[in-house]
Amino acid sequence: MQVKITDVAKHAGVSVTTVSRVLNGERYVKDDLKSKVNRAIQELGYAPSQIARSLVRKKTNLIGVIVPDLTSSFYSTILSSIEDRASANGYSLLVCNISENIDKELKYLNVFQEMRVEGIIIMHEKMNEDIRSFIHKIKIPVIFSSVKPLEQDFVSVIIDDYIASYEATRYLIELGHETIGFIGGDMRDITSGQNRYSGYRNAMEDNDKRVMDEYIRFGDYKVKSGYEQMKELLSIERRPTAVFAVSDDMAIGAMNCIRDRNLRVPEDISVMGFDGSLFTELVRPTLTSMEQPIQQMGTVTMDVLLKQISGIEIPTTDVVLEHRLVVRESCQRLNKDHV
Amino acid sequence: MQVKITDVAKHAGVSVTTVSRVLNGERYVKDDLKSKVNRAIQELGYAPSQIARSLVRKKTNLIGVIVPDLTSSFYSTILSSIEDRASANGYSLLVCNISENIDKELKYLNVFQEMRVEGIIIMHEKMNEDIRSFIHKIKIPVIFSSVKPLEQDFVSVIIDDYIASYEATRYLIELGHETIGFIGGDMRDITSGQNRYSGYRNAMEDNDKRVMDEYIRFGDYKVKSGYEQMKELLSIERRPTAVFAVSDDMAIGAMNCIRDRNLRVPEDISVMGFDGSLFTELVRPTLTSMEQPIQQMGTVTMDVLLKQISGIEIPTTDVVLEHRLVVRESCQRLNKDHV
Repeated sequence: MQVKITDVAKHAGVSVTTVSRVLNGERYVKDDLKSKVNRAIQELGYAPSQIARSLVRKKTNLIGVIVPDLTSSFYSTILSSIEDRASANGYSLLVCNISENIDKELKYLNVFQEMRVEGIIIMHEKMNEDIRSFIHKIKIPVIFSSVKPLEQDFVSVIIDDYIASYEATRYLIELGHETIGFIGGDMRDITSGQNRYSGYRNAMEDNDKRVMDEYIRFGDYKVKSGYEQMKELLSIERRPTAVFAVSDDMAIGAMNCIRDRNLRVPEDISVMGFDGSLFTELVRPTLTSMEQPIQQMGTVTMDVLLKQISGIEIPTTDVVLEHRLVVRESCQRLNKDHV
Repeated sequence: MQVKITDVAKHAGVSVTTVSRVLNGERYVKDDLKSKVNRAIQELGYAPSQIARSLVRKKTNLIGVIVPDLTSSFYSTILSSIEDRASANGYSLLVCNISENIDKELKYLNVFQEMRVEGIIIMHEKMNEDIRSFIHKIKIPVIFSSVKPLEQDFVSVIIDDYIASYEATRYLIELGHETIGFIGGDMRDITSGQNRYSGYRNAMEDNDKRVMDEYIRFGDYKVKSGYEQMKELLSIERRPTAVFAVSDDMAIGAMNCIRDRNLRVPEDISVMGFDGSLFTELVRPTLTSMEQPIQQMGTVTMDVLLKQISGIEIPTTDVVLEHRLVVRESCQRLNKDHV
């Protein structure tokens, strides 16, 4: 049962008016009454309702966050740094894990609106017309983190996925690889699907490498799909000497598949990842990866959103963070006598 | 700017009373008025305030969750299944990531109380007097998931950590290992620190194996500390033939350390983990581990909490789930001629 202000008054042996005065920090309350009230508040565990106060102040200090997959190290790391920054600024997070369920996303957006969250962070780029029209209509600041699903109206905190993917591919070319397999993402995703694919394709073409359909596979960013797609790449008669997967999870799945076939990374096949998740350092050989600044992405997302909420300065352009190629052990220069 | 009920009335060309009637689902509103109002609601993106309704209904549909570390695969997987169950029951999660910061926990508990969450889930067992007294005083159901920090009053959803650790150690003994290193957790933690340590110790003693201090190390459950502690174990002149780490993350750190020293798992040293995180299948060799039913733990936690919230049935005893030894590739029978 919720402790009420009348319970506090009764317990302290004072009037409700006195309790209310103490709560509102009014002066001219005698010290002994004040300490009686404070003691009663502590003993009963009374807390004035944030809900009631929200109605008055019109501030809920809530941020709604939509995460595609909490069990992914990439998203949970961004979320962790968003939470850190939110908490430091007195905000709490309402977290929705949608796991590819777009209906759930729309339901949650409604909940966020009803809860009067002050801002919404979306880390997911699959859209439908309902969601698109919803986020355009609500009067709550919306920001996208790590994705840029729409052309207009919303700020995204991202890296340049096209350039990053281009440079990752070029790195493999510079190591002497001619046949480079590609494990892409979902082509319905602009940022992590289409842009990373174009980066690979254009880097190949710009360097006069043949882009062959059979070397191009698509997964769902998860370990298992990397494994499955690698299996297909290994079944090609002239298998690629290097593979670029657009998520570290898929790259690790690919590495496992290669090892389970008694081949070696990088001696037989080089593997390049993308993201810079915790996994890169955790596997053996450690994974060379085109890294996003994951923690910074969370921090910057929250900072920009706080500016939007305050209304003092409304950022309107995307924030593009620096990507970075981190060379570890999984890619090697192609030996000239490699078949 | 928030759309108000007066805006809807104006936009629809009807009175506020009419809008209010439509919102409350009253009968005797003419169909054409009803559709005018509904169209205006949709066009303006109006949503009745959950806050205002909460005050009336005394239901916020909020659950507060305290997570020790969002970037850990173990906790993010539990959280993901809690979220799933919560969402299916119309609840949203307020998520607090404390990363070993106990002050933050207390601050968040206060926020939870002020937000009038209907229940609190804690996955963390480090306590101080303030937190202990706070959760005893608040009138909100509290449940612990994966930990049991206190002897009294609160329900925990856990496995039997002592037995699980005992059986993991016994398995290594049955494989013929005499010298078994142990990488434990934080001894201030009852569940994952003390109980798992006792399980190891008693299994060794019950099977007449010498428990030697230099074979016993303690980490913080994370990959890095497993690596560091393994380094120490490898520096012992007669190094152990098997190592049991009380988290998969530490076990993986230990495996990496072993490999970086050009030794092989399991040929030179067997490694056993604990938890059953995603990592177990992801590393090579795959990790033999004493597994907790992680997803089930989240689901059951939420189910028990919902019962507590409904007040229909108040569970008072801990829910002890089944642990399970999953044998993979990282442990092997000790070769008789092993040094």
